[in-house]
Amino acid sequence: MTPRGSGFLALAACALLFAAAGAGAQPLPSWSDGAARTSVLSFVKAVTAEGGADYVPPAERIAVFDNDGTLWAEQPLYFQFAFALERVKTLAPQHPEWKTQQPFAAALAGDAKALAASGEKGIAELMMATHAGTTTDEFAKIVSEWITTAKHPRFGRLYTELAYQPMLELLACLRENGFETYIVSGGGIEFMRPWTERVYGIPPQQVIGSSIATEFRLRPDGKPELVRLPKVDFIDDKAGKPVGIQKFIGRRPILAFGNSDGDQQMLEWTAAGSGRRFLGLVHHTDAEREWAYDRKSPVGQLDKALDEANARGWTVVDMKRDWKRVFAFE
Amino acid sequence: MTPRGSGFLALAACALLFAAAGAGAQPLPSWSDGAARTSVLSFVKAVTAEGGADYVPPAERIAVFDNDGTLWAEQPLYFQFAFALERVKTLAPQHPEWKTQQPFAAALAGDAKALAASGEKGIAELMMATHAGTTTDEFAKIVSEWITTAKHPRFGRLYTELAYQPMLELLACLRENGFETYIVSGGGIEFMRPWTERVYGIPPQQVIGSSIATEFRLRPDGKPELVRLPKVDFIDDKAGKPVGIQKFIGRRPILAFGNSDGDQQMLEWTAAGSGRRFLGLVHHTDAEREWAYDRKSPVGQLDKALDEANARGWTVVDMKRDWKRVFAFE
Repeated sequence: MTPRGSGFLALAACALLFAAAGAGAQPLPSWSDGAARTSVLSFVKAVTAEGGADYVPPAERIAVFDNDGTLWAEQPLYFQFAFALERVKTLAPQHPEWKTQQPFAAALAGDAKALAASGEKGIAELMMATHAGTTTDEFAKIVSEWITTAKHPRFGRLYTELAYQPMLELLACLRENGFETYIVSGGGIEFMRPWTERVYGIPPQQVIGSSIATEFRLRPDGKPELVRLPKVDFIDDKAGKPVGIQKFIGRRPILAFGNSDGDQQMLEWTAAGSGRRFLGLVHHTDAEREWAYDRKSPVGQLDKALDEANARGWTVVDMKRDWKRVFAFE
Repeated sequence: MTPRGSGFLALAACALLFAAAGAGAQPLPSWSDGAARTSVLSFVKAVTAEGGADYVPPAERIAVFDNDGTLWAEQPLYFQFAFALERVKTLAPQHPEWKTQQPFAAALAGDAKALAASGEKGIAELMMATHAGTTTDEFAKIVSEWITTAKHPRFGRLYTELAYQPMLELLACLRENGFETYIVSGGGIEFMRPWTERVYGIPPQQVIGSSIATEFRLRPDGKPELVRLPKVDFIDDKAGKPVGIQKFIGRRPILAFGNSDGDQQMLEWTAAGSGRRFLGLVHHTDAEREWAYDRKSPVGQLDKALDEANARGWTVVDMKRDWKRVFAFE
């Protein structure tokens, strides 16, 4: 298919779907042989079988994935938030007032309790202070530097190493079968774009996320730049996800994968199209290899969407049971 | 490349670039053999020559095109505005107050002068009244019906027949050479998406345009829908075009084509990237086959961008001189 987002994830993940039965490698090798794996593979087979009742032409094979908790981990806090906290430290010398001003003082002191006490307003303030005020090019560079050096506190590995191996295989499998794979995340669009192509095989134009406003300016030397402003442009979460899908893609997906209540409306929107659909949720059930959390978790809460998935027969991936391997480094 | 947006424009437009010299059909057959055609073909050849100094990997071959006046005609008024005027007539029975209320009364009476007198505010009001208040699915259906039946007043043909044949060839040529082709238009994104794939080979996810807000709602029967609201979401014109490019694509184009001052910032943004770039403007110089207008035109004004193009050596396509054929039906 497209030269974008293919090739470097040479997992031969789906060869079996097209090859004669029994030939070639097993598709989705990191998935246990169970209902979840079977349901997604039979979906892919059905929508790609020319002449079949469920056939979908390649142009309409749109697959959307949440990012945090679906394609990579999100504990003990969203990785973008870890990035923001480190940015506060980096920027602190230019902001002496932060020493006494919340939520910055809490961030500098590593005081999680005071940080939480600053509430949504405090968090938003912290995100703006650390994500705005640069050009788009500068911000991409800052993210690229962080993502290739910062280490996850529990695993001591790069955050990108906490991408889920089974999901990398699924993304590659879908692309091999003519799908276009999109990220539809509540996270920041420009925080993801610098590395999603390398890590997931998903190019920038297939990344949808929350954004702040940018402004086009001509510098005194006549060079144009886009400046990031401390102003919310779009929140790509919950009911914002179908809005983002329509805005950026303009076509209803036939497959959607999430892991939290923030993905519920995206799954509902995908499910409501005509023809065969695949709806999936990653259920974090593995405290040993990853984390176990759902209905009461402050990060990635999965409650209402889990009820709806069970009621409607959507595929719930039980991480402990359905994934042989969670991370590539295991 | 991608299964989207290819195939049905089988123009064999660029075979020569890869075939041995002299073999195969001439590329861009509707372009006169002159400087404009040479400049774009030599650009494509340079950026696709592996090992060459100007080589650009396929993932970075992003090409952006304005729509009105660049890919299809825009006279005597923007085609979307003709659509809006017809919608006013269709909706009038539900709005008896429009008989006396401007700008609707003017629209209903076909009074162009009174309509113009209502100014930008009046036009915006008219656009909202005719473009909001439906679901996204309903709106796509309304546009699809209009675009396959409404006729252009001068030519008596479908508006889509007023797509420029040389530009269709160029779009196909670029895609054959690994480019992803995007529309970046001041026009409405959902007004274009229902037909751009069929007419230009450009799928919905590669259409960027102005938009109104949408809202996700669950109907009483539980079915989700996206409702179009009478509220501007994004104006993809002038300094908005680079913003839209970054928002939707997240990567700087290497080729940009426009025809008016509304495209100037898009061309500047494209030009400012490192490496070889192509910047083009369609100059409407052919009153006989199409229209002749530039610096003083209320529609598609080309003034400052023309000065900049001349000063910086951008390619200015003189429609009369550079295009052998303007429309396919000639």
